[in-house]
Amino acid sequence: MANISSRAVRMPASAIRKLVPLSDAAKASGVKVYHLNVGAPDIKSPACALDAVRSNSMDHISYTNSAGLIELRRDMCAKYYNKIGIDLQPKDLLMTVAGSEAVDMALRITCDSGDELIVMEPYYTNYNTFCFMNGITLKAVPTDIRDGFKVPPMSEFEKLVTPRTKAILISNPGNPTGTLYTKEEVLALGELCLRHDIFLISDEVYREFCYTDQPHFSAMNIPGAERNVILVDSVSKRYNLCGCRLGCIASKNEEVMAAAMKYAQARLCPPVYGQVAALGALDTPAEYFDAVKEEYIRRRDFTVKALNEMPGVFSPLPMGAFYTIAEIPVDDAEAFCRWMLTEFRIDGETTMVTPAASFYKTPGKGINHVRIAYVLEVEELKKAMNIFAKGLEAYPGRTV
Amino acid sequence: MANISSRAVRMPASAIRKLVPLSDAAKASGVKVYHLNVGAPDIKSPACALDAVRSNSMDHISYTNSAGLIELRRDMCAKYYNKIGIDLQPKDLLMTVAGSEAVDMALRITCDSGDELIVMEPYYTNYNTFCFMNGITLKAVPTDIRDGFKVPPMSEFEKLVTPRTKAILISNPGNPTGTLYTKEEVLALGELCLRHDIFLISDEVYREFCYTDQPHFSAMNIPGAERNVILVDSVSKRYNLCGCRLGCIASKNEEVMAAAMKYAQARLCPPVYGQVAALGALDTPAEYFDAVKEEYIRRRDFTVKALNEMPGVFSPLPMGAFYTIAEIPVDDAEAFCRWMLTEFRIDGETTMVTPAASFYKTPGKGINHVRIAYVLEVEELKKAMNIFAKGLEAYPGRTV
Repeated sequence: MANISSRAVRMPASAIRKLVPLSDAAKASGVKVYHLNVGAPDIKSPACALDAVRSNSMDHISYTNSAGLIELRRDMCAKYYNKIGIDLQPKDLLMTVAGSEAVDMALRITCDSGDELIVMEPYYTNYNTFCFMNGITLKAVPTDIRDGFKVPPMSEFEKLVTPRTKAILISNPGNPTGTLYTKEEVLALGELCLRHDIFLISDEVYREFCYTDQPHFSAMNIPGAERNVILVDSVSKRYNLCGCRLGCIASKNEEVMAAAMKYAQARLCPPVYGQVAALGALDTPAEYFDAVKEEYIRRRDFTVKALNEMPGVFSPLPMGAFYTIAEIPVDDAEAFCRWMLTEFRIDGETTMVTPAASFYKTPGKGINHVRIAYVLEVEELKKAMNIFAKGLEAYPGRTV
Repeated sequence: MANISSRAVRMPASAIRKLVPLSDAAKASGVKVYHLNVGAPDIKSPACALDAVRSNSMDHISYTNSAGLIELRRDMCAKYYNKIGIDLQPKDLLMTVAGSEAVDMALRITCDSGDELIVMEPYYTNYNTFCFMNGITLKAVPTDIRDGFKVPPMSEFEKLVTPRTKAILISNPGNPTGTLYTKEEVLALGELCLRHDIFLISDEVYREFCYTDQPHFSAMNIPGAERNVILVDSVSKRYNLCGCRLGCIASKNEEVMAAAMKYAQARLCPPVYGQVAALGALDTPAEYFDAVKEEYIRRRDFTVKALNEMPGVFSPLPMGAFYTIAEIPVDDAEAFCRWMLTEFRIDGETTMVTPAASFYKTPGKGINHVRIAYVLEVEELKKAMNIFAKGLEAYPGRTV
């Protein structure tokens, strides 16, 4: 029998999904599982997006341009980017199969096999997966949970820069940390990239999920860095349309966009119904986002307060996205998460979170960290956090 | 300014789309262009698929399982594969972002960088693109337009097999040739793959577009080759839902499917509305396909007859898909296609076809071939073929 490739064998399995068989087994035995493990929000999609799909009059779903419908690219600029102060024209952006494809394209466009990419750890675990798939070496600058994972001094990045470094990739606000970077931090990263003549890939899919009055500062607005910055964005994430799989890659660098078009043509076109939903979503009223933010602030405040009230637990207060990383008093967070799913129940219920070690490159780092996605209503979060706290108290591997 | 990667520079541009700027310019100047260059059919999608999307009651478009909705995978087996005699269970297949992603996954799963893949030329040009993207060397067995591009003797494949050969990839029925392979041909390829212990990747996205009474023989039904065969399929192509971007990869080899799942998880999930459309499409009545086949047979018969009546032109009679390759009496088919778009008009109209040299690996082969997609109604085809014939007569670079 034929053997599969070595790269398919070595391909990392999803760290976020690897405990799913255990939660499936728990559920099969009648246990209710509170899912704080995946960033799959329960918030309703905007009615205008859903209506656009339901009321479409297409009698034939044909290919669109590989870059997406021109009217969508125009509306993305006029109704969204230009309104929030990001100067993009339709030629500067290309619709992708969600943020995932945009990250993959940005990596292929900036890095050859054997090149190096710098990220801050903890990072979105699929950054590492896409690096693996493209033969790129991921190097990680450590950040510190105690200061809320803020951007370390540029000297820490300088230490990792080699002639093979081609780009820095940031997630702002961050998955898995929820950290929102300041304008000064983004400008400093831009200056570093300009100085070394490397790319800054800025994943801003959580841009509309910011919980401060300080406006989000996009890497697209770093003065003088127009040709170095590549934006990764997601329509489906922004409008709670995750399953639509629609995002974009954008840059003022024409070489980058010409290369993106070649990759886009190889897969023919982005999903049409997702594009139709996006056209509708661009009319989402501001009140929708106000309500979503209010809701997430309530959930975040509850979750982070509950965590910090648990003995030996620490979580910073994240200012964006819908995640937080918590340090917990155990030797091995993955073993704890497994135990919660297989052993611990309160009234036939348990809580699932994601062990965070796989978000770190440095061996041993994050071993006692978990990522918590606060994507449930507060009443549900109360039950989930209570079970989590009681589980931690009862856990045989507790360290304090 | 930062430089893009060498692989992005070397990435092949779409051969099929590279003349699009010329057709855009022609159209901008008021010329009507008959598009026989892309396989974008004008046939209406099944009403049951469109209705499934319009009548959906989802208020939140969330992620599905990375392998696709389980009910869709079940229905794919029960309502489609099992009915046409292909024994697949839900665990044997995983929904993909159309046939494109399924090809890409199949290549990554079977071949490491530096490995070799054998195809028959002329081949679907993106096979070469996906090989390039994955560092795989494409090797091509020549076929002959004069015998309708049938599968050459196995000895021709043997000549190309080396220790680095990991798979043979076929398209059946074929794009760009329209050739339908016989059961004997498919069995011979299976036997060869078993003997060398390599994979047979069978791209059957045009399975329902066959114009003979001889049933299509799927590579999934080669006895004893269960662990060597990987099926690439497309729901969106089959049901004239091209823009939905939904297909699948299938195999009885669990290692293959476990690897496919890792790749699937990296991009989170296939497009949800495409999955909803697919669930609806599976109820498409047999009459829909009967009518589609009848229509394509009319178009094919007209097109191939018209071609063979042109002096110096030869086209075989394709038995599947909606393409044919024609040999035309010119030095360089690409120059002719450009000239048609820039210079030649009849009553302000011209015809666009695809030069076929890029479907060949062997230098110089196919230089006087074009691919014609018969995806317009016969009345339109009549006008398009008339312009094509007149253009060939008038072309200064005509060789006979």
